[in-house]
Amino acid sequence: MSEERTQVGIVGAGPAGLVLAHLLRSRGIDCVVLERQSRSYVEARIRAGVLEHGTVDLLTSLGLADRLHRERMVHHGIELLFERSAHRIPLTELAGREITIYGQHEVVKDLIAAWDGPLEFSVSSVSLSGLSSSAPIVSYVDAAGTARSLRCDVIAGCDGFHGVSRASVPDGVLTVHQRDYPHAWLGILAEAPPSSEELIYAHSARGFALHSMRSPTVTRMYLQVRPDEDLASWPDERIWSELRARLDRADPSWKLADGPILERSVAAMRSFVVSPMQYGQLFLAGDAAHIVPPTGAKGLNLAVADVKVLADALTSWYATGDRAGLDAYSETCLRRVWRVQHFSWWMTSMLHPTGDDPFDLALQLSQLRYVTSSRAAATSLAENYVGFPFP
Amino acid sequence: MSEERTQVGIVGAGPAGLVLAHLLRSRGIDCVVLERQSRSYVEARIRAGVLEHGTVDLLTSLGLADRLHRERMVHHGIELLFERSAHRIPLTELAGREITIYGQHEVVKDLIAAWDGPLEFSVSSVSLSGLSSSAPIVSYVDAAGTARSLRCDVIAGCDGFHGVSRASVPDGVLTVHQRDYPHAWLGILAEAPPSSEELIYAHSARGFALHSMRSPTVTRMYLQVRPDEDLASWPDERIWSELRARLDRADPSWKLADGPILERSVAAMRSFVVSPMQYGQLFLAGDAAHIVPPTGAKGLNLAVADVKVLADALTSWYATGDRAGLDAYSETCLRRVWRVQHFSWWMTSMLHPTGDDPFDLALQLSQLRYVTSSRAAATSLAENYVGFPFP
Repeated sequence: MSEERTQVGIVGAGPAGLVLAHLLRSRGIDCVVLERQSRSYVEARIRAGVLEHGTVDLLTSLGLADRLHRERMVHHGIELLFERSAHRIPLTELAGREITIYGQHEVVKDLIAAWDGPLEFSVSSVSLSGLSSSAPIVSYVDAAGTARSLRCDVIAGCDGFHGVSRASVPDGVLTVHQRDYPHAWLGILAEAPPSSEELIYAHSARGFALHSMRSPTVTRMYLQVRPDEDLASWPDERIWSELRARLDRADPSWKLADGPILERSVAAMRSFVVSPMQYGQLFLAGDAAHIVPPTGAKGLNLAVADVKVLADALTSWYATGDRAGLDAYSETCLRRVWRVQHFSWWMTSMLHPTGDDPFDLALQLSQLRYVTSSRAAATSLAENYVGFPFP
Repeated sequence: MSEERTQVGIVGAGPAGLVLAHLLRSRGIDCVVLERQSRSYVEARIRAGVLEHGTVDLLTSLGLADRLHRERMVHHGIELLFERSAHRIPLTELAGREITIYGQHEVVKDLIAAWDGPLEFSVSSVSLSGLSSSAPIVSYVDAAGTARSLRCDVIAGCDGFHGVSRASVPDGVLTVHQRDYPHAWLGILAEAPPSSEELIYAHSARGFALHSMRSPTVTRMYLQVRPDEDLASWPDERIWSELRARLDRADPSWKLADGPILERSVAAMRSFVVSPMQYGQLFLAGDAAHIVPPTGAKGLNLAVADVKVLADALTSWYATGDRAGLDAYSETCLRRVWRVQHFSWWMTSMLHPTGDDPFDLALQLSQLRYVTSSRAAATSLAENYVGFPFP
């Protein structure tokens, strides 16, 4: 078995792992990134598309945002649609920061293209050991079938909800906080121009719908469905007709543009947090440590905030030997994680009818009316949606 | 049977019925108030004690607030206590209006003392008929045992949640929206000076507690308990020790003053709304139409807002024959009712641990941290707590 050595072993080449790699390199810290999937798979994996100002700033400061700045769409507001009326939340006016629309997989492509350090795709049989020692090891089989091991000072577990990192922590160390929702999102990517300049979050008695976009010619839309929904029962025409019904508004001039559906999938909604987010020399970041329902558009942004905290802590540790930042990693991250969990739960609860409780429906409408008529309440939504400054 | 005649028959001499009576008299409209309980019972019935600015203004404009202005306590903030730290929400600074602490039964005493129109206590066998006609009738037996009937133009159902008014509406007319909570409040009135100048809403893993006051020598305090809690299992020392535990804070100089317990009771918590709040010539107001959990301190204030809307609508109707205000009564009231329902549900959900879900507890703490650190979120709490202007 071939043994190599690095300072930080990064498991996972999603946004968390790749941003961490770039951050560490910018500070002179060595790292190796290992990814189970192929490069083409990772680059084509359609995910979220809303970037907080802080995320854009971080990518820009690392020199990773040239294409982003050329191709992104900058939004200064979102629409809340309910009772067939649209109400705009002017994000930039209320919270002082705009949002950026740019697909997560585009970010991933940019991060990979700009990376010339060690990064191995299509590795298998990843396992972690010695986590409570000062020299933890990542063992794996590389793309060519050779068993390897990587001796590290620190391992960053950036391998998502189903990854091996969190599962490598001994039983009894992590506490799980979890909430499942009685709905899922059916998402489509369609070759159709956006029917609105800004995102539309639509509440209707038929269920929630979200109108979003990726470019002037591609829209991304979602429908609230049951968690066990079968995609086979959603032919194109049913999807469009349901979107039209849920996005309908009193204004007769508004029309939903349609077009060929390029991609479709159903994703369950879940809130999940492990605490602490660290064990010995293993630090979990992004989806490996927490999942938010997509309604708040926070998954990627929260992962970037985690690795910013981790990179800062590692920088101090290597520079001065002071472990305070590393020891506080979990506590520092979890403040933001819980703020975002609360916001994502709140947006989800406000916008998704459960269908079986008229009290719930009336509360949702009352809350929507309030959020769109009180400046304080709208500002509260806006400051969470655009994101608080990174720690 | 003796038949009398009035313009507005008011069933119930709580705050809703009595404020309505005074409002109508100020506008030259005749009314008769009928109350099932005795005067001494009504005047001693301990209820809420927080008056919105709008409620105080209305009472003042009717000349009913002389004693209130002499004896009330004016508060400019409340405290939220969690994780053993107190955080002040500066209500007046954030929302531009203060709150008044003055017991509901003191308001009732003032309203009765100032009333020289027809008001009968201790009536029984109240029943309503002809509600969809132009001359509905209230039949009852007076305190002396004489059967009487009162022919009215309009009946105002101000007789509370268990009253006869709502029950007189034919089946199928009213839709009920309801939510029960898995907790109740054990309330005490104690001869002890307040331990704080302002109300303290305390969240702890042991449960919610509220420290309130009625005067410089009398405190009013509440403990979250189970809905089926037996008062017999709460001797004085257990109540004080539980209050001390839940109100405990890191600041060692703070101490809870105790003293003889003058009154104690357990009240279940419920959210309840009927829609519409009217049927023919019957108009429901206050608890007859809706119940809020007490956490938002809204019950009395919402009742006063209802009867303000009703008095305005009746004034127009008698002056011009225009029924538009009466026809819109329910819709006008329900906007505020649902705002208040949402706020009361929100305060309740944020402050009462359910004990069986660590995700809930973490969400509550995240929300409390947010509300006490974001000016927008604190303003949102404040503007709801002090109350929006009356319609």
